[in-house]
Amino acid sequence: MRHYSEELQRQLRETANLLAETARPIALSYFRNSGQDLKNKLIDGFDPVTAADREIELAMRAVLAEHRPDDGVLGEEFDSVTGTSGLTWVLDPIDGTRGYISGTPTWGVLIAVSDENGPVLGIIDQPYTGERFFGGFGVAEFQRHGATAPLRSRSGTTLETATLFTTFPEVGNLAECAAFNRVRDKVRLTRYGTDCYAYALLAAGQVDLVIEAGLNPFDIHGPIAVIENAGGIVTDWQGGPAHRGGQVVAAGDAALHRAALELINEG
Amino acid sequence: MRHYSEELQRQLRETANLLAETARPIALSYFRNSGQDLKNKLIDGFDPVTAADREIELAMRAVLAEHRPDDGVLGEEFDSVTGTSGLTWVLDPIDGTRGYISGTPTWGVLIAVSDENGPVLGIIDQPYTGERFFGGFGVAEFQRHGATAPLRSRSGTTLETATLFTTFPEVGNLAECAAFNRVRDKVRLTRYGTDCYAYALLAAGQVDLVIEAGLNPFDIHGPIAVIENAGGIVTDWQGGPAHRGGQVVAAGDAALHRAALELINEG
Repeated sequence: MRHYSEELQRQLRETANLLAETARPIALSYFRNSGQDLKNKLIDGFDPVTAADREIELAMRAVLAEHRPDDGVLGEEFDSVTGTSGLTWVLDPIDGTRGYISGTPTWGVLIAVSDENGPVLGIIDQPYTGERFFGGFGVAEFQRHGATAPLRSRSGTTLETATLFTTFPEVGNLAECAAFNRVRDKVRLTRYGTDCYAYALLAAGQVDLVIEAGLNPFDIHGPIAVIENAGGIVTDWQGGPAHRGGQVVAAGDAALHRAALELINEG
Repeated sequence: MRHYSEELQRQLRETANLLAETARPIALSYFRNSGQDLKNKLIDGFDPVTAADREIELAMRAVLAEHRPDDGVLGEEFDSVTGTSGLTWVLDPIDGTRGYISGTPTWGVLIAVSDENGPVLGIIDQPYTGERFFGGFGVAEFQRHGATAPLRSRSGTTLETATLFTTFPEVGNLAECAAFNRVRDKVRLTRYGTDCYAYALLAAGQVDLVIEAGLNPFDIHGPIAVIENAGGIVTDWQGGPAHRGGQVVAAGDAALHRAALELINEG
């Protein structure tokens, strides 16, 4: 295990907050404006990248170049930077661009600091609602309008009483969708369309399970740090580390996580 | 057509705002608290009714008894009141209780005033984000944090460039789901899980189509007034009035509405 001095922890947290503060006004300036410069990333389908995405990531990279020049950067929009410190900032300037361009307030700015073992600190920031979900070094906190409250995932929920979230009803490929549906058919309530906001709500003890597939690393580093420091658990569908992306299952506690993994792998 | 004097219009709008102000603190006091007194409305399935729902509707009915004693009341939680004025207040204290109990900010307080021809004034209020979407007597406005902006639905969008919203992927029965999916397969982007917030975003010109089935009258009176006064159109799936509930299609303009109706009825 890498050693993080209190001074380093403080610096990383300050920088993460500075990144979130940098992103907010840019994200808000494009949100619900009709002048968004949408481009299609994929030839098939529709994966909108907005000017906001690019402008935010450039602004965040400038902050890192000034405050943490020896760290690496892995972002959604531009080439990776290899650092010398062993730490990498993992950035998704706007997670949930489909929600963002539709005006829903469930997209987020994702920020994480990761080492060779995965994320150690993360933020899920929702600029429009003013909500910031932070997790790092054993602390998990919710910040809004200048007030701070501890974040704690919900425990003791069974599958039969659980609330499950995902973004797309099709989840991923057909086998992934079938695996998801086995869990969906057991839980009390399933909701769709939330992107990273679902992970924030899980850390806040409002929902119990988030199951997704086809994620990129930058989609999940921030949520992992927030949820793990709030008492929850995030793995891939085999129970291994989730920070490489792909299939992800997040749960409020270990027993529910085990139960969901079993159902996922039953097919 | 019933005549609405300027004084009556002002009174109705003031009362509607007062109802929304009355609902907000109650809705927020229960939101994301774990002490919600959930009861299952249905023997099969899960239709949560919260203490907040009941408490808000009682408080709103008390406001109406004081300020508009001659009007009727149709609310989700308690018996209807028949008025003598020819006007009826149609109230859904919390539309989207599933989202509400999951912590997402896409539920809303729905308020409408309706006469024999349908809604004439409506509010979609989102207490957590502080957003109020108002429509009535030719005016449609968005209010947040003391600022006001005009609401205008988007026009000129074709099916191929449209954003479509609904709440549940299953939409309704199998035939209803198939009809929805014909539209889904044509549009650029489909999103789920938004309840009444989708109608607010349509009035705000952020999304182009909302298609749902199985609605109750109190789910749709408020949205109809907001959308129609913002330039949009709301009907049932046959193109008739939507305020009796059931199947609803809302669109940003008439041409897109026609195109969606055609696809819905193609099967």
